Amino acid sequence: MNPDVAFAIWSGERAQRVAAVLDRVMPPAAEPPQALHEAMRYAVLSGGKRVRALLAYAAGELAGADPDVVDGAAAAVELIHAYSLIHDDLPCMDDDALRRGQPSCHIAYGESMALLAGDALQALAFEVLAGARLRDAAAQLALLARGSGSRGMAGGQAFDLQSTGATLALAELERMHRLKTGALIRAAVRLGACCGAPMNAEDSDALERYASAVGLAFQIVDDVLDVEGTAQSLGKTAGKDASQRKPTYVSLLGLSAARERAEALRAEARAALAGFGAHARRLGEIADWLTKRSS
Amino acid sequence: MNPDVAFAIWSGERAQRVAAVLDRVMPPAAEPPQALHEAMRYAVLSGGKRVRALLAYAAGELAGADPDVVDGAAAAVELIHAYSLIHDDLPCMDDDALRRGQPSCHIAYGESMALLAGDALQALAFEVLAGARLRDAAAQLALLARGSGSRGMAGGQAFDLQSTGATLALAELERMHRLKTGALIRAAVRLGACCGAPMNAEDSDALERYASAVGLAFQIVDDVLDVEGTAQSLGKTAGKDASQRKPTYVSLLGLSAARERAEALRAEARAALAGFGAHARRLGEIADWLTKRSS
Repeated sequence: MNPDVAFAIWSGERAQRVAAVLDRVMPPAAEPPQALHEAMRYAVLSGGKRVRALLAYAAGELAGADPDVVDGAAAAVELIHAYSLIHDDLPCMDDDALRRGQPSCHIAYGESMALLAGDALQALAFEVLAGARLRDAAAQLALLARGSGSRGMAGGQAFDLQSTGATLALAELERMHRLKTGALIRAAVRLGACCGAPMNAEDSDALERYASAVGLAFQIVDDVLDVEGTAQSLGKTAGKDASQRKPTYVSLLGLSAARERAEALRAEARAALAGFGAHARRLGEIADWLTKRSS
Repeated sequence: MNPDVAFAIWSGERAQRVAAVLDRVMPPAAEPPQALHEAMRYAVLSGGKRVRALLAYAAGELAGADPDVVDGAAAAVELIHAYSLIHDDLPCMDDDALRRGQPSCHIAYGESMALLAGDALQALAFEVLAGARLRDAAAQLALLARGSGSRGMAGGQAFDLQSTGATLALAELERMHRLKTGALIRAAVRLGACCGAPMNAEDSDALERYASAVGLAFQIVDDVLDVEGTAQSLGKTAGKDASQRKPTYVSLLGLSAARERAEALRAEARAALAGFGAHARRLGEIADWLTKRSS
């Protein structure tokens, strides 16, 4: 089979799989308080690429984990991601009315319910990961918490807020993105790998290098697509970085150099996987896909 | 020593203790992103009664736990409480400019930073509890997550939003408060107890009855004080339930019957402790204190 087709089938199957897990772990929409549970389900089940879940499953395959064991980790990182998008779109943050081609959660359910839905989804992420009963569960929960908190994703958002309208050096922009999107992507890869056989320090470092490069490449491609894409292809407002005067890889490097940097990071991610052989196949394919995507 | 004085000394010492733990687990204000870390520290270290931490320490004493072991659980429940207050005060929620006698977090740091500070504090709560390495850590983390999420505190907030301007039956008001304030109070008691010797089912049920009664009594007294108190004595805006047309125990029962219900719940909490003997001393004193407080 054409490898691209095989990857599309694998990733489609895994995306459906985590959607089913997410559907199962969230309270039914009919359970009171209904507006809250509806808002949570709306935000989580409205699609998306499920990049973080795919990374967790692929890292699980690398470590020989049963996908049944990875389910909890994959769902937990998607729940954290979904909560962050809800809060990101709020009027006091990016004030974005469109997400995944649909009205943002606060447009559909009101600001206060959207705020609470985000809060409740964060709690649910930890509940689901705790319920997955991974080896050394406390360490895995601490890893997800650090990736989400002020030294991870939330810290990256704060840097982002501070940088609006400012001129950043490339190193500062990179620090921001290593936290804002990178921290949760690294957590997804590590959590997935923890579902399988224990890894030696060398392999663990290689996997960390992979996750770090993929996370940054993903963000750079996001910046490129924000300039090149349309709301229809992106499912979210296009061109908003420029209109919000946010520094991006494109504004700092220009389109062509930004694309080159993403390609270099893709090669770096691929190189980090070299020692793993065939088990790293899906991780490698994800690096290619994320760098070459058009939405 | 006069028992009231002895309790005041104990509770003052424990409140200081958890404040020191909270100070230690939060990133320093000078660590970038500074505005985020300042906002987190402002919200968490600006005082408060530390009711949830005291309950955790007192339940720990009941179970023979070393206070050093309870520290993580006590800090975690306070971090969840602090995050909920920040988000509660936001313009899209209660829109309250005053908290603990000071400008609310979003008045001091802006809405977007306050939102992120709340988000980061929730993550930190789970990180701290995971770091405490309690017996059966995953179960304790799940307990805190459930108490905080849509079937706990956040769910109670959603019921609260839906109830504004509505007429609730007493049973509906009680359901709301059993989630909104009760769920985290019950989690505090259970987490504290888990730091000590394992408990049989009968004792565990009795402790749950205690926590449930104390949580509800606490909320009823809050409603009474909102009517009777002043902003100066409360450190927050007084009379806001009525001005926001929120149903309360006072609006449903009247002041005198609300006070009687709080007293009955205090007696219920005391009765639930009867089988524990002297080890339950602090828990009993907390029930008295919370019911008789004037702020």
